Amino acid sequence: MSAVPTPAAEQPSILRRDQDGVAWLTLNRPGQFNSLSRAVLGELITAVDAIAADPSVRVVVLSGEGKAFCAGHDLKEMRGNHNLEFQQDLFRLCGKFMVKLTELPQPVIARVHGIATAAGCQLVSMCDLAVAADVARFAVSGINVGLFCATPAVGLARNMGRKQAFEMLVTGEFIDALEAQRRGLVNRVVPLERLDDEVNALAATIAAKAPLAIRSGKQMFYRQLEMGLEAAYQMAAESMACNMMTEDAAEGIDAFIAKRKPEWRGK
Amino acid sequence: MSAVPTPAAEQPSILRRDQDGVAWLTLNRPGQFNSLSRAVLGELITAVDAIAADPSVRVVVLSGEGKAFCAGHDLKEMRGNHNLEFQQDLFRLCGKFMVKLTELPQPVIARVHGIATAAGCQLVSMCDLAVAADVARFAVSGINVGLFCATPAVGLARNMGRKQAFEMLVTGEFIDALEAQRRGLVNRVVPLERLDDEVNALAATIAAKAPLAIRSGKQMFYRQLEMGLEAAYQMAAESMACNMMTEDAAEGIDAFIAKRKPEWRGK
Amino acid sequence: MSAVPTPAAEQPSILRRDQDGVAWLTLNRPGQFNSLSRAVLGELITAVDAIAADPSVRVVVLSGEGKAFCAGHDLKEMRGNHNLEFQQDLFRLCGKFMVKLTELPQPVIARVHGIATAAGCQLVSMCDLAVAADVARFAVSGINVGLFCATPAVGLARNMGRKQAFEMLVTGEFIDALEAQRRGLVNRVVPLERLDDEVNALAATIAAKAPLAIRSGKQMFYRQLEMGLEAAYQMAAESMACNMMTEDAAEGIDAFIAKRKPEWRGK
Repeated sequence: MSAVPTPAAEQPSILRRDQDGVAWLTLNRPGQFNSLSRAVLGELITAVDAIAADPSVRVVVLSGEGKAFCAGHDLKEMRGNHNLEFQQDLFRLCGKFMVKLTELPQPVIARVHGIATAAGCQLVSMCDLAVAADVARFAVSGINVGLFCATPAVGLARNMGRKQAFEMLVTGEFIDALEAQRRGLVNRVVPLERLDDEVNALAATIAAKAPLAIRSGKQMFYRQLEMGLEAAYQMAAESMACNMMTEDAAEGIDAFIAKRKPEWRGK
Repeated sequence: MSAVPTPAAEQPSILRRDQDGVAWLTLNRPGQFNSLSRAVLGELITAVDAIAADPSVRVVVLSGEGKAFCAGHDLKEMRGNHNLEFQQDLFRLCGKFMVKLTELPQPVIARVHGIATAAGCQLVSMCDLAVAADVARFAVSGINVGLFCATPAVGLARNMGRKQAFEMLVTGEFIDALEAQRRGLVNRVVPLERLDDEVNALAATIAAKAPLAIRSGKQMFYRQLEMGLEAAYQMAAESMACNMMTEDAAEGIDAFIAKRKPEWRGK
Repeated sequence: MSAVPTPAAEQPSILRRDQDGVAWLTLNRPGQFNSLSRAVLGELITAVDAIAADPSVRVVVLSGEGKAFCAGHDLKEMRGNHNLEFQQDLFRLCGKFMVKLTELPQPVIARVHGIATAAGCQLVSMCDLAVAADVARFAVSGINVGLFCATPAVGLARNMGRKQAFEMLVTGEFIDALEAQRRGLVNRVVPLERLDDEVNALAATIAAKAPLAIRSGKQMFYRQLEMGLEAAYQMAAESMACNMMTEDAAEGIDAFIAKRKPEWRGK
């Protein structure tokens, strides 16, 4: 396990470990419940940019060390910088990172083993996929400290019904993992002891697919979500036609017809 | 309990009762199943405008007297005014009121104890939150009288999946409270005898939050729903930065760090 | 049962049977698992255009002969035409047909008795309604042959949560009928032996409604989905006002008030 360079810190705030085409990015500030300080957000952006440029990575898993998955922003840091410029910079950086997750060519799986609150819940909402332990819990709790979770609301409202998202935002109350799954915030829920197996299995399934198809598909997926039906179909039709002209699609279909396993060449 | 002034009526069509920062607006035409006549819609707009300007109100509860929550528009009035101008005026007024509910600074909870049909079902869909009794039932039944529930469709399709909304619109069939909850139309379902307790508890929870954060948050919530991801994050980041500069957020975070209860000053 | 004319084929690829205002369109290439070849898509467009112009049809049921509902595009044909023009033409035609389903004045029910994969799953997603047998299964499995199901993603992501749709797209894994219902992809699930009864009952319910209201309502429904809240309400208000001026609405309300059955004249 190697550390993403963090000049000003003894202990790296983020760890990256690569195995079998899967990059595990781990928030590594358990004493701070993996809160997203200004510095951590900067490091996450650097780490994600590096992964975007690394063709050996097929899937990313985002996890957290210690008891919590991620408890949101660093409230002490926020209170210690009581000026509008710092706050604007912080939340713009946060938004930039969250959008980057959807722009990253590789699918990102949130591995949620504990609480995910405020921007931590937002982080789950903005990953492409999420697998949670049955003991994980989710809240957008800023309202309890006088701070409406406005940026988390963006992700949350795109993962569940608006009334359900609104209730969480104005009450600050927790939902458990099964409720999060029912609402759409997470894909799978398993007992804590099976969490890594489930995440590994899902990551391996995706890593075994043709990488070009996954990359262009993910990009297309988020773009079409923001389009009307006709424009979405026009873009999707171009995307599929181009995908069909890749060597991998030819190989995939030939293998399917011949009832053999395909061998992707990433072309 | 005081009545909103209703010049032309003996019995007020809408009642307003305020307690502990919660304004209860009650449709008071039980003999007409609380139908939304032209006059009632006008009074609702007046009542909601007054609440918007009243800083003592933190939460609104919308309920209905008698057997039904609300049975939609007043069919007899509609048939008695068979001209396009009246119909256009009626449905524009209805749409204006429904949009106003999302623009109102205070969160609105629908308290649904009985049937909510057609524009009554729309009313539930357009409230920020809804708590229903287990005996409540929901339908957009206009199609049974030759009238597709077009305006209710706007709210309904923003509360549940499109196929589920479409089925209700073309069949006119009822769904029960638990199904409405599963689909996203209501937040909570309780036995009828516990309905007021549940509504009161939810309203009290929200009323105890910092009012500025709730107000700016609700406004931001509906605006970002209609934006693309990047624009939504840009607006949300500004919203959070401004929220952080309020006295309440400073107090809230200080209280959280000191493990004491915050005292909101509404600034 | 009559065949839609198919000049180049001995056995018609699509069958049409009309009964009691319901047009059954049946994919009739069981040996090819009802795959959507270039020719079949052309015939489907012709068939749907004919239905759009046929006032005797109130509801359309889309079904498939043989074991599968529809297994997507014709992979052999796609591989046999390895040039960009063919692929662009194919997927544009596919998108054109799928959008046409939402533009068709009559509601379309997918009758799903077996597997619906890739463009077959897309077909289910783009019908207004879907009734599935408990043994039906759904997947967007293109990714298994190196082809991200981009056009199916458009329909799928508009029928269920984005994380759930994304998981299906990058894993290619199946979901069963009950899961499809929970997510919003199908309206009703029944045992296979009751499938036709359920489809017939749903179709008959809709066919018994005032045809003008259904037609204008369906058109309005899909248009408002792509609008902001205020614009949606403005359009919906006009739609309802016009609907109220039809003879059918007058008849429907008069019948309701007189507690008798309405008689639609389609005016």
